[in-house]
Amino acid sequence: MALIVQKYGGTSVGTVERIQEVAKQLVAHQKQGHDLVVVVSAMSGETNRLVGLANEINDHPRGRELDVLLSTGEQVTIALLSLALEQLGVHATSYTGSQVRILTDNTHNKARIMEIDDAKIHADLAKGKIVVVAGFQGCDDNGNITTLGRGGSDTTAVALAAALKAKECQIYTDVDGVYTTDPRVVPEARRLDQITFEEMLEMASLGAKILQIRSVEFASKYNVPLRVLSSFTEGGGTLITAEESKMEQALISGIAFNRDEAKLTILGVPDHPGIASQILGPVAAENIEVDMIIQNTGHDSTTDFTFTVHRNDYTNALNVLQKTATELGAREVTGDDKIAKISLVGVGMRSHAGIASTMFETLAQESINISMISTSEIKISVVIDEKYLELGVRSLHKAFELDQLDPK
Amino acid sequence: MALIVQKYGGTSVGTVERIQEVAKQLVAHQKQGHDLVVVVSAMSGETNRLVGLANEINDHPRGRELDVLLSTGEQVTIALLSLALEQLGVHATSYTGSQVRILTDNTHNKARIMEIDDAKIHADLAKGKIVVVAGFQGCDDNGNITTLGRGGSDTTAVALAAALKAKECQIYTDVDGVYTTDPRVVPEARRLDQITFEEMLEMASLGAKILQIRSVEFASKYNVPLRVLSSFTEGGGTLITAEESKMEQALISGIAFNRDEAKLTILGVPDHPGIASQILGPVAAENIEVDMIIQNTGHDSTTDFTFTVHRNDYTNALNVLQKTATELGAREVTGDDKIAKISLVGVGMRSHAGIASTMFETLAQESINISMISTSEIKISVVIDEKYLELGVRSLHKAFELDQLDPK
Repeated sequence: MALIVQKYGGTSVGTVERIQEVAKQLVAHQKQGHDLVVVVSAMSGETNRLVGLANEINDHPRGRELDVLLSTGEQVTIALLSLALEQLGVHATSYTGSQVRILTDNTHNKARIMEIDDAKIHADLAKGKIVVVAGFQGCDDNGNITTLGRGGSDTTAVALAAALKAKECQIYTDVDGVYTTDPRVVPEARRLDQITFEEMLEMASLGAKILQIRSVEFASKYNVPLRVLSSFTEGGGTLITAEESKMEQALISGIAFNRDEAKLTILGVPDHPGIASQILGPVAAENIEVDMIIQNTGHDSTTDFTFTVHRNDYTNALNVLQKTATELGAREVTGDDKIAKISLVGVGMRSHAGIASTMFETLAQESINISMISTSEIKISVVIDEKYLELGVRSLHKAFELDQLDPK
Repeated sequence: MALIVQKYGGTSVGTVERIQEVAKQLVAHQKQGHDLVVVVSAMSGETNRLVGLANEINDHPRGRELDVLLSTGEQVTIALLSLALEQLGVHATSYTGSQVRILTDNTHNKARIMEIDDAKIHADLAKGKIVVVAGFQGCDDNGNITTLGRGGSDTTAVALAAALKAKECQIYTDVDGVYTTDPRVVPEARRLDQITFEEMLEMASLGAKILQIRSVEFASKYNVPLRVLSSFTEGGGTLITAEESKMEQALISGIAFNRDEAKLTILGVPDHPGIASQILGPVAAENIEVDMIIQNTGHDSTTDFTFTVHRNDYTNALNVLQKTATELGAREVTGDDKIAKISLVGVGMRSHAGIASTMFETLAQESINISMISTSEIKISVVIDEKYLELGVRSLHKAFELDQLDPK
């Protein structure tokens, strides 16, 4: 008899029929002997409908009242799911974030969870009830409704699992787990049974958008085993846990990639201390996020400086950089918005040399030119011409035998 | 500088444009120097939409979870109205029933208000804010969301006005006040500037459906001046207050009528104690509400017994009565579902004789036959053939000079 927190996203509860399906599934899980706490999102489309109304009525809807509005989305779902469970003869009780009490700070629209009161939930579970909690929301210590921002329901689920000391936090979504890479690019991609928090963070931030980064960080911090699985098909999904030394780690867990980037280079900048912030300061001032940054030693006491941004910010960043170049007396500014990034991720990398050279060799064999390289403890990223993205990912997936159950 | 509670119903906040209109109106009222607390209903259609979802998912949606669902309707409106006020540069704060805290008993779906915490509202008003409160909802002392049932938003407004000791509770609706009778029947019908709670109760329960009876009772109990006025047109509306002795009362304030009734008669019933409950008991057991009841002395120690029911219950009531008649050995059962009821209402009636005889005489002059009569302290009701309804109402309106500013 284990306590499990399950989270169902907007698509999983998008229609009355889908909610009824989730209810049936919950009853089956309860019959297996589990104590269940269920976190749900707003029905898909509902949040957009509410935001649409807000935009019609206010030029910049935000703050306290936007949270009052948006939080109704999940409140509708918890009530409907509880009514669906009652229809199946199962006792259920729903709670809004305020009712639980999920205490947050008072940063409306992107609040952070401070504390969760577990008393009511434990009392309901002891009575054999299924507890249904509204994701994405809480309240500050004055009772004002707050919301957690994008992907907030995942965070609610993980935080609840931590507070309730649940055995597992299961995130039901429209994919059946985390794959070695995107199966649309590599048909041989394999679902991973298990992966570490660190690897998942690198995979998620690199574009494998299954879980919100914040919820993975939260799970890692409180060591909550997290499982990603499909609400539409059967299967054990992928379990995300802390690294276990007893496990024989594969060198590489997966390959992430991203084609939404663009790179900019400023050439022949006078090389003196503080030059990096002089270049990136004006970019940050325009609210443009920078991803990779590389500085090469140049000649004649100048330096070349390259960074990548989201492709949507490319034109804007280029204008900013050209201005900076004039001010600093740089030689030239170049840019390329037809690039892609490929990253190998794996905790096994730590204890094994030679990953990087195998990667570079594999790409060279396919005549793919690498224009930027960046490494971290469990990740190697390269920037290449966008048109070689699929070829690169496929050859790396093969080279590292990721389609094998026991890869290199 | 007076504190005023205003309530806007579903039609008044039915679209984004209507909410913007209400916001403009509130700003104008605030500029006149008023402290404003605004109670709003769900946007028209929203409650039906939510009930529809609940019905799709559960055969008999009710109880706690239905309240969690329905209460989102008003929560959306308070947020949108507050955002609309912010757009106009006015500070506003919204509160759900739970947030205010409007404490109710735990009778879900038709809870009764027990107590209102006025601290937050007074604090906001002191800061110059407009306070926007969700109608129709509260919470029990365990923090469960409750709803007040039909017309609950009116009750919320009156209860808030009582708790806050407001100068007036203004109910904005789609009519511009209470009329001497329905203007669709009598074009000369006149809007009443003032009327007493008792008269309004008799008018409302007799079919002039402007305010929920419960909210008028509440206002009467706590002596909250209540004003009905239109959210679509200008005008002072109708003020509903306790009876003031200094006021010169008109004999009759208005004429209510109802064509949704049917009458049933059981003839030649053995006249012995308890016969009334033997006849009406089986009717009540079928959940049929009985309105007027008249028992005439018969002959040969039998009696004739007549009562009226809602026209929708006519067939059902007739079947019940025929069964009862057989059991009691009554002579005959007759019925008529083509009747109408006309009622004169007015506190002036108390101190003036002759109202009844003027009423009967007026109807006789038009050759309208009266089949039932029932009286209370401030009301006389007669049942007539449905086809004479309009004629009867018009001639009575004229006879009592209700179109005059200073009627008889």
